[in-house]
Amino acid sequence: MTREFSKRLANLGTETAFSVSLDASNQLEKGKKVYPFHLGDLDMRTPDNIIEAGHRAMLEGKTGYDPSAGIQPLREVLASNIGNDRCLNYEPNNVAIQPGGKPVISKFLEVLMNPGEAVLYPNPGFPIYESQIDYLGGRSIPYGYTYTGTGFEINRDQIESQIDNNTCAIIYNNYQNPIAAESSDEEMEWLAETANKHDLWVLSDEAYFKILYTGKGKSIVSLPEMQKRTVILYTFSKTYAMTGWRLGAAIGPEAIISVIAKINVNVESCTNHFIQYAGIEALTGDQSGAMNILETLRQRRDTLLMELKKINGVNVFKPNSSFYLFPDITQVYNRLGSQSMEDFRIRTLEATGVSFCTREHFGTPLPSESRKFVRFAFSGIDCESIREGLATLQEYWNKGC
Amino acid sequence: MTREFSKRLANLGTETAFSVSLDASNQLEKGKKVYPFHLGDLDMRTPDNIIEAGHRAMLEGKTGYDPSAGIQPLREVLASNIGNDRCLNYEPNNVAIQPGGKPVISKFLEVLMNPGEAVLYPNPGFPIYESQIDYLGGRSIPYGYTYTGTGFEINRDQIESQIDNNTCAIIYNNYQNPIAAESSDEEMEWLAETANKHDLWVLSDEAYFKILYTGKGKSIVSLPEMQKRTVILYTFSKTYAMTGWRLGAAIGPEAIISVIAKINVNVESCTNHFIQYAGIEALTGDQSGAMNILETLRQRRDTLLMELKKINGVNVFKPNSSFYLFPDITQVYNRLGSQSMEDFRIRTLEATGVSFCTREHFGTPLPSESRKFVRFAFSGIDCESIREGLATLQEYWNKGC
Repeated sequence: MTREFSKRLANLGTETAFSVSLDASNQLEKGKKVYPFHLGDLDMRTPDNIIEAGHRAMLEGKTGYDPSAGIQPLREVLASNIGNDRCLNYEPNNVAIQPGGKPVISKFLEVLMNPGEAVLYPNPGFPIYESQIDYLGGRSIPYGYTYTGTGFEINRDQIESQIDNNTCAIIYNNYQNPIAAESSDEEMEWLAETANKHDLWVLSDEAYFKILYTGKGKSIVSLPEMQKRTVILYTFSKTYAMTGWRLGAAIGPEAIISVIAKINVNVESCTNHFIQYAGIEALTGDQSGAMNILETLRQRRDTLLMELKKINGVNVFKPNSSFYLFPDITQVYNRLGSQSMEDFRIRTLEATGVSFCTREHFGTPLPSESRKFVRFAFSGIDCESIREGLATLQEYWNKGC
Repeated sequence: MTREFSKRLANLGTETAFSVSLDASNQLEKGKKVYPFHLGDLDMRTPDNIIEAGHRAMLEGKTGYDPSAGIQPLREVLASNIGNDRCLNYEPNNVAIQPGGKPVISKFLEVLMNPGEAVLYPNPGFPIYESQIDYLGGRSIPYGYTYTGTGFEINRDQIESQIDNNTCAIIYNNYQNPIAAESSDEEMEWLAETANKHDLWVLSDEAYFKILYTGKGKSIVSLPEMQKRTVILYTFSKTYAMTGWRLGAAIGPEAIISVIAKINVNVESCTNHFIQYAGIEALTGDQSGAMNILETLRQRRDTLLMELKKINGVNVFKPNSSFYLFPDITQVYNRLGSQSMEDFRIRTLEATGVSFCTREHFGTPLPSESRKFVRFAFSGIDCESIREGLATLQEYWNKGC
């Protein structure tokens, strides 16, 4: 073939964190112990009642096509569940089932962003936001966060100063991956006012809405004038340990959802039929599985936090949501004479077996950033291994103190 | 909101056959009997051994993420299976698992077609070809078929006369939906030579490769110089009655497949994890389920064919593949004084309960066409109902003879 691939591929990004998994696998192949803090996946199996509901649906012959927007009973249950949790009314026509939460990102942008238009997205943040904005011909405009010592605040200047007539949307990820940021009421209100003032579409990525250790989740969609301009990214992945099932939904204004359903017809026909019945069981059946998952994560969070704090120069806050810690490790970085974040990460992995992602796996650092951060996920490692891994990490990172 | 949706949506098509399903549902709701010849889905449950393999994998905890290109053992089995059936060598790196066969259409075009470039596609044909070429900014160029009385031949003039420097690819669907066309060796060789001569990429949609009543499937990829320019659309849907599982694959040159896997990272992370183990069972386990499906379809084909031939002015051939008959009903159409194909379809549905799609659900008729055709799918209706439905149809369509 002399033909080249299409030019659009030049703008296609990826999740660079996969290279961290590869490095960890290579260590394992060398017979070395690895402590997997890089995984954004859960090491817990989906609760039994959900698995059995899926199996039952297969046996009942839910193995043929279903409607492109999903089966009606799941759309009903989700509309009611999402609405109740956010004090709003949603109908089944506001829900388009998806093969995971991730497809909502590209479909939101396909429906609402023209090539050349700008979309604000969080950085550090989930890398696919930037990748898909650029891939679909938009202009990806990052906004950052400021570390307060007890959490992260959105850098409002970076949002305000960058909005212009060309800006069509903002992506917002409360209960944030990778930094576990949680908006104050005041911050969320400010963001809603900003979206209203500039008439922006909003993608509210609520993947971690139920991975909340105290209190009740809040969504920007509940604020005045927001329901009509917001699409919620919903996923079963985290709450019910269903990452590998690929089951999620886009929830928003009916006009947008019906177009998303039309895109579904084009790109995948429909989401797997029988797993949608498992989704109904997840939402309406016994919740002890989800509660156990959350309780397990809480214990891991507390264990990891306690152990990280024993390291000189590690500055880390206790997040109320998600399954990530995002410590400031600038002092350790300097103490080890690191050449780069990759150098720091790989040396630590080789010396201690502790594997993690760095801030750079979640976007290019902004000029406003001076500190160094890494992400420790505690979704794929148990408390005993956390303690064991942190003991070797403490020894290595504390060296020279 | 004052903002409009994106301009790209103007070029997004759909499957208009869904409106036929809606009409059938409306008849049912009125308490009327419907004979569903419009369904391209199978009314048979997935074979038990495949269902149980999926359940086993869930219980074994295959409920977390898997690689974006799919699990290695399924890629291995598919590479070997696809290669053996086509007398070629494929490696796991030539296989990217997909949530269905349909995603291969858009991903093939995304990787290989630039906006403004032309892609040839079959018409009548699967409507998503045209929709996705146009949606992704290409120029969709239809080519048709000529009825020979015993089958359909590709209209070679329409291909040759429309290829220019701007043409980058051709979509080819042997064992065709909706017309059940099967290329002669000579026709397939001509098509391969044409693709070679003009250095075209080829999407070979092989969804019905195993729905073959006699003989062994042939793929254009087996012809000289074709493997390097062809992507195979593979799906488990038809052979194993797995339409609702959404499990398929893109198989082709490694450089293309690795980009498709990168698109997977962006748009869906990965295909459902545990159903891929069911896919391994489908390919390597007991084949009696697939054989029963094919035998059932053969009986239906023969029954439907016999009954259709009892109608004056229906001209239909016996296809060796797919689960569709595509009769020429021009005389009946005229005899009934039909105003349009939709008029003909709806009047027949209301008078007899027999529901089918027409040629127009598979693309806009080409200027070269003068005859009227409809599609009878026999995948979703048993022999008894075929006989019953055809009895009422014979009465209605033979009226006035």
